[in-house]
Amino acid sequence: MTITSFHPPRRTLMGPGPSDVSDRVLQAMARPTVGHLDPSFVGMMDETKQLLQYVFQTQNELTFAVSAPGSAGMECCFANLIERGDKVIVCQNGVFGGRMKENVERCGGIAVMVQDDWGTAVDPVKVEEALIAHADACLLAFVHAETSTGAQSDAKTLVGLAHKYDCLTIVDAVTSLAGTPLKVDEWGIDAIYSGSQKCLSASPGLSPVSFNQRAADKIQNRTSKVQSWFLDLNLVMGYWGGEGKRAYHHTAPVNCLYGLHESLVIVQEEGLENSWARHHKNHLALRDGLEQLGINFIVPEQDRLPQLNAVTIPEGVDDALVRTRLLNEHDLEIGAGLGSLAGKVWRIGLMGHASSQKNVDFCLNALKLVL
Amino acid sequence: MTITSFHPPRRTLMGPGPSDVSDRVLQAMARPTVGHLDPSFVGMMDETKQLLQYVFQTQNELTFAVSAPGSAGMECCFANLIERGDKVIVCQNGVFGGRMKENVERCGGIAVMVQDDWGTAVDPVKVEEALIAHADACLLAFVHAETSTGAQSDAKTLVGLAHKYDCLTIVDAVTSLAGTPLKVDEWGIDAIYSGSQKCLSASPGLSPVSFNQRAADKIQNRTSKVQSWFLDLNLVMGYWGGEGKRAYHHTAPVNCLYGLHESLVIVQEEGLENSWARHHKNHLALRDGLEQLGINFIVPEQDRLPQLNAVTIPEGVDDALVRTRLLNEHDLEIGAGLGSLAGKVWRIGLMGHASSQKNVDFCLNALKLVL
Repeated sequence: MTITSFHPPRRTLMGPGPSDVSDRVLQAMARPTVGHLDPSFVGMMDETKQLLQYVFQTQNELTFAVSAPGSAGMECCFANLIERGDKVIVCQNGVFGGRMKENVERCGGIAVMVQDDWGTAVDPVKVEEALIAHADACLLAFVHAETSTGAQSDAKTLVGLAHKYDCLTIVDAVTSLAGTPLKVDEWGIDAIYSGSQKCLSASPGLSPVSFNQRAADKIQNRTSKVQSWFLDLNLVMGYWGGEGKRAYHHTAPVNCLYGLHESLVIVQEEGLENSWARHHKNHLALRDGLEQLGINFIVPEQDRLPQLNAVTIPEGVDDALVRTRLLNEHDLEIGAGLGSLAGKVWRIGLMGHASSQKNVDFCLNALKLVL
Repeated sequence: MTITSFHPPRRTLMGPGPSDVSDRVLQAMARPTVGHLDPSFVGMMDETKQLLQYVFQTQNELTFAVSAPGSAGMECCFANLIERGDKVIVCQNGVFGGRMKENVERCGGIAVMVQDDWGTAVDPVKVEEALIAHADACLLAFVHAETSTGAQSDAKTLVGLAHKYDCLTIVDAVTSLAGTPLKVDEWGIDAIYSGSQKCLSASPGLSPVSFNQRAADKIQNRTSKVQSWFLDLNLVMGYWGGEGKRAYHHTAPVNCLYGLHESLVIVQEEGLENSWARHHKNHLALRDGLEQLGINFIVPEQDRLPQLNAVTIPEGVDDALVRTRLLNEHDLEIGAGLGSLAGKVWRIGLMGHASSQKNVDFCLNALKLVL
């Protein structure tokens, strides 16, 4: 056995994530590692918190990046906010609502499912019916931007309903953050998680999260310990928490955080609203081009996510072969279908750094050549 | 608010980790991100698995890197191997044995503690007494290399005892892997976790783990679901598992894994035994220099870890001031004491890339100047 250094190909990443990481972010990750309690690093963490507050549009004190991918950010929200026997209303309109159910049940909670067709938005009418039927529920959980289908739900309305019936909310914003309007404070979201590798275009491995005071109070007033030591916010807060106070909890992924910091600086330079507008504009250009190729979206127009375009695979076309040819002949990655949509759809991402007119043109041209 | 790119200082990292990351590893992390299901990436994962099998000295099929820091690797072992009501004998001779207890209890297990003085090795006699007194225990957990004290325990003997009394073993090798002899198969270790940022000198954020067939069988035959979805090995195995079969579970931290791969290639180039020998040689040089400065080790000679040198802070010396001056005047990080040793000891790491004669000389000279 002699294994040598790995040199990956340079792809154009237009799948459901990771998205293309810019050279600026890659170079930031290659800067010298410092200790996770080094004053210079602690200063960078403070800045990262401020930048995350900006992209989440929140003043929440408890805003930071979980030291693991989005799945762990999801688990962080559920494990901290659920105690045994808690009833949670979970909306499912794709793969990730199902993962929420798994999380609720593994935390000892009871999941009440509200089902909607894959490719449609969560229906607020059904949600209100469930909230009325389950007056003992304490949480509502839903996915803002379903990465498996490309459908966007009306987070503001759903959060309003939850609060009307005295429930806190957990919102999956893995694919929405920085790609489509998301306003944590204005909409009253109580707990939210995202990923570094979608519209922020940092490398995968970190999960930005934010909790408002109501959520933080619930966590601090738990009668049982959080079942995960690694994700216990009562402990993590000691590290990411108040000024000057940095208790050792775990070793932070230093270089990954350099990359996230740089990706957030880039969003700040562009301006969040400009980022949303860019994602929208490039989505429209891709849509027009796909329609000219006779390729149709699975999500009704008003619910489409600009950063994740799920389209029906044209009849008679070999799904895997096309994706393999795109990869081998054009170094272009687009996404396969997930769950019940496997083999039926492609997911074309225009996320973060990858959302550009250049990529739209490139993808459309490559598809034309391969189909 | 305008926040600009972060440029960390270049430190020499001689604390308890992260250790100095070589430029080769940093450059590997800056290579272009590819998709986590890209064939080129999957090939790199296969190589990473082989390299991890080499450094762990194991043929275990279930050998991979958890997508999060060592604390999550610890939790991965406990959450998968414990079911509610399981009795676990936990050896504590420092901070991390205490963290094991937390893990056992949060997984619904019952922890039976075997206590030894901090700075000493785990006493096999006490362990055997506990195994006899608790014939219903199913697991023995201990720390091979206590990062908080610099003491090494006799893993081979402890594992032998556990098996004699029909217990599986969970071994914390966060600080030992690649720094001091560790032979998973020869010693019969059932489950083991480590960290990327110690003697492998990769960036923090990944936790190499390995499970033998007995441990894998126990996990596959659980009567209850693993309480963590993110760490559930029955699901993770689908991604890291058998040839060609890569089911999506979570998005792997792609660039961090590039770095780990490169760090493992470096260990392979040097040879594992040569790495152990280098750590030992540099430890002896540091020891001689420290003794000349009148600085004494807290661990008896035969139990000392070469990669983590815990020494008593000389009387009358201001702990924080010295460490701050080393950092500010010499860009040198050494570690503070942890837990009950806070303020009493320094922890000087000679881990991985940082274990060099140059660093020994530099550290001794800086200490001389500052003291």
